[in-house]
Amino acid sequence: MSKTFEKLDSYLEKGKALNAALILFEWDLATLAPEKSDKNTSDFIGIISDQYFSTLINDEVRQLLEKLEQEEEQKELSEIEKAIVKEVRKRYEELESIPQKEYREFSELKARATSVWEKAKNKGDYKAFEPTLEELIQYRKKFIQYRFDEKKHKNPYDVLLGDFEPGFDVEQLDEFFNQIKEELVPFIQEILKKTKDVDKAYNFKEYNLDKQRELSRFLAEYVGFDFEKGVLAESAHPFTTGLHNHDVRITNHYFKDNLESGIFSVIHESGHAVYEMQISDDITMTMVGEGTSLGMHESQSRFFENVIGRSEAFWKPLYHKLQDTFNEQLKDISLEKFLKGCNKPEAGLIRTEADELTYPLHILIRYEIEKMIFNDEVEARDLAEIWNEKYKEYLGVTPKNDAEGILQDIHWAGGDFGYFPSYAIGSAVAAQIYYHLLKVMPFEEYLEQGNLKAIREYLKEHIHKYGMMKNTNEILKDMTGEEFNPAYYIRYLKEKYTKLYE
Amino acid sequence: MSKTFEKLDSYLEKGKALNAALILFEWDLATLAPEKSDKNTSDFIGIISDQYFSTLINDEVRQLLEKLEQEEEQKELSEIEKAIVKEVRKRYEELESIPQKEYREFSELKARATSVWEKAKNKGDYKAFEPTLEELIQYRKKFIQYRFDEKKHKNPYDVLLGDFEPGFDVEQLDEFFNQIKEELVPFIQEILKKTKDVDKAYNFKEYNLDKQRELSRFLAEYVGFDFEKGVLAESAHPFTTGLHNHDVRITNHYFKDNLESGIFSVIHESGHAVYEMQISDDITMTMVGEGTSLGMHESQSRFFENVIGRSEAFWKPLYHKLQDTFNEQLKDISLEKFLKGCNKPEAGLIRTEADELTYPLHILIRYEIEKMIFNDEVEARDLAEIWNEKYKEYLGVTPKNDAEGILQDIHWAGGDFGYFPSYAIGSAVAAQIYYHLLKVMPFEEYLEQGNLKAIREYLKEHIHKYGMMKNTNEILKDMTGEEFNPAYYIRYLKEKYTKLYE
Repeated sequence: MSKTFEKLDSYLEKGKALNAALILFEWDLATLAPEKSDKNTSDFIGIISDQYFSTLINDEVRQLLEKLEQEEEQKELSEIEKAIVKEVRKRYEELESIPQKEYREFSELKARATSVWEKAKNKGDYKAFEPTLEELIQYRKKFIQYRFDEKKHKNPYDVLLGDFEPGFDVEQLDEFFNQIKEELVPFIQEILKKTKDVDKAYNFKEYNLDKQRELSRFLAEYVGFDFEKGVLAESAHPFTTGLHNHDVRITNHYFKDNLESGIFSVIHESGHAVYEMQISDDITMTMVGEGTSLGMHESQSRFFENVIGRSEAFWKPLYHKLQDTFNEQLKDISLEKFLKGCNKPEAGLIRTEADELTYPLHILIRYEIEKMIFNDEVEARDLAEIWNEKYKEYLGVTPKNDAEGILQDIHWAGGDFGYFPSYAIGSAVAAQIYYHLLKVMPFEEYLEQGNLKAIREYLKEHIHKYGMMKNTNEILKDMTGEEFNPAYYIRYLKEKYTKLYE
Repeated sequence: MSKTFEKLDSYLEKGKALNAALILFEWDLATLAPEKSDKNTSDFIGIISDQYFSTLINDEVRQLLEKLEQEEEQKELSEIEKAIVKEVRKRYEELESIPQKEYREFSELKARATSVWEKAKNKGDYKAFEPTLEELIQYRKKFIQYRFDEKKHKNPYDVLLGDFEPGFDVEQLDEFFNQIKEELVPFIQEILKKTKDVDKAYNFKEYNLDKQRELSRFLAEYVGFDFEKGVLAESAHPFTTGLHNHDVRITNHYFKDNLESGIFSVIHESGHAVYEMQISDDITMTMVGEGTSLGMHESQSRFFENVIGRSEAFWKPLYHKLQDTFNEQLKDISLEKFLKGCNKPEAGLIRTEADELTYPLHILIRYEIEKMIFNDEVEARDLAEIWNEKYKEYLGVTPKNDAEGILQDIHWAGGDFGYFPSYAIGSAVAAQIYYHLLKVMPFEEYLEQGNLKAIREYLKEHIHKYGMMKNTNEILKDMTGEEFNPAYYIRYLKEKYTKLYE
């Protein structure tokens, strides 16, 4: 190993260990920690966060990085080491571009903003959040200026998009969302009319929570969640986290009057978890040992949840078990009825409750608004109105108040602009992978045989094992011969929904 | 605040936060972490441990300490700050006395020794562990030499005893164990004869695990475990840990064919937990914000488990609930029978399974052996034989193999010599507190009324809230007017067992 890299690595190892501690504290707070523990514990978390930053951001690391980027040093590095140097440089640039004072102010603002947002949401009143959102936007705009690079960026919004999905910009996403607008919006209108009378009352009967818990464990294991390398717990909202490929953790949330919610959440989180569990052993403890991007991660969770989990082939061998578990509620519901029910689209107001078909419209709306914001085409005070107009235009619905409108998501309060598009990118990548798998394996047969392993192995070899060694487009190109192409997504939704409700 | 103390405090805060992370990792590994996670995760733990040590042990901290110990600086310090400086100095001396190279060698030896011990125990063969134990003893003897101070120590073993129970030495413990030998050994023989036919078959019937879990939560809460500031989970062996006074965690272990085990374990751990939960807010996040010593901690857990938990007054208002919960198994067992059963003494081989009466004999044996070791009166190769002889002498039983003899405890494999006596000190302190409470409050009436709060409040005001601001003898003196006095312990056991089985 290069002596210089070895020196850098000793900092990175410390950073990884501190980050693992932070992840564990957060997991624990969300799943188990006693109600009154958070004040003291967040002092510990604050101190460890500071140590994490000072371990990675300091003069010695900076000098080591510079040295390692020189040609003669690069020759001595393995591919993994090169990727690590590149990744550390990227994080450096993001953090170092911002003056420390402004960074701290922004961190404090974010902490404050979350609680302002929460209160405003409880009152359903955007006005109470507006000045804070305006401040957040101004900071982000300033930070964009620090990092805007004419060689890489055409649009200020590109800077933010690239943070969450490296390689994606406004040009590409405009094309993507235009296709959604032109081809999907009219299609969705049509399907919504056809399906409005689909009866899914069965889903809202009473379902025993312990039986749901047991079913969740079964489904997680069935799709490939390895309980020797993972934990399933409960929290207010389902999420995935983890320390390394042998410790990946998911949560679920169970409602006694909504069966689908628990079923598809656990399959979704298991998709995230299988990605992390299949990252190669030789990188899992390094800075490139995680899924490559939010979009690619979301592609895996949505592939498991929607492409696999809401398909007929998946449920064929399983549905009788579901019926046996909840005999009273499901004995008269055929598999066909269940599939029509769990895929039923509805023009709703809330993104997180949206079905697979209308989901991209929720993202389209956020994308258009964020693009306007960072191109100075709108001011904070007009955002609630614009939000409501767009929901009327694309989904034909109007929020009763801002809690089910512009205040529904936490992302902006956390300073995260440019994050939402990765959800839609993820769905589109999942569709692109689906059509590729149809070509290279007997995909539906595997599902009907319950042979999820064959599918997982393929995803491991072509996506998961690489961690952050390849970005989304590199992965897609190497696997399918083609970079990101949203046409598959449109095709997938049209084919699936036409067939389901013909 | 003194500027110098403020500087020291910034190191201590970091140290506390890193230590909290280590505690959380250990808790998580014992209760939840996936089976295959430990290899990678222990790398993180190792790195954070190193950071913990380098945060506290370094030239700058050393200089700050020296400065703070000077008279003019001391004047500026509060009582809490003085106690913190004293505590940090103590830890410094322990660690700094040992050359770093030997410290590292010893740490590695301990890690190795634990697995050697485990294998030897599985085979029941002391010979396989003997050379490793000999090495551990040699290191400890060397370390004793580095720290032996003629002004403070009369016996080499004193150095080790003082680590676990500050202020206690061979002179005091000889007197303590002599009383046990002279007064208790014959008494125990007598009681064992009287009680050998006490029937407790009811305890080994089948008890539903979920009902035991629910009962455990109830009992923990009943004795004062505050679930808003604590967590109850499960692990192989029950233990208590915590991050601060608003996050204290206990575990229990349930056996389907042993009701007592789960009941008295949860009361025992709740005793530890109540101590930690009642430490004062202004010290909980500092270096003196924990129970003052192992012995004092054990006094609280044993006070709750044995003095309170195995008494008639405690069960009077509760026993009907226990009978209702396990009606089939307990309907014919009167409260009197239950109390005779759960206090029944038995001359056994295993310390952790011992009853309240014979327990001190297990400690007496270990104390005598440790004292011989560190006074060069015995060699490792003779220890198993000596062990067996002493069990024959004091308890009249002989191990079938070394697994139920000298290999039963993990302590020596972890390099912990001088630890065992604190268990007996704890029992004796519990008895001393008991007779004091009888004087200052209607103790039995409180128990019969289920008014545990009054008892807890008193313990808080006189013991718990101080954390490490006072040592065991200071606490006893201030509370009862008398330092540690083992006569109460002998009296307590004699009175209790005479009355129970008259």
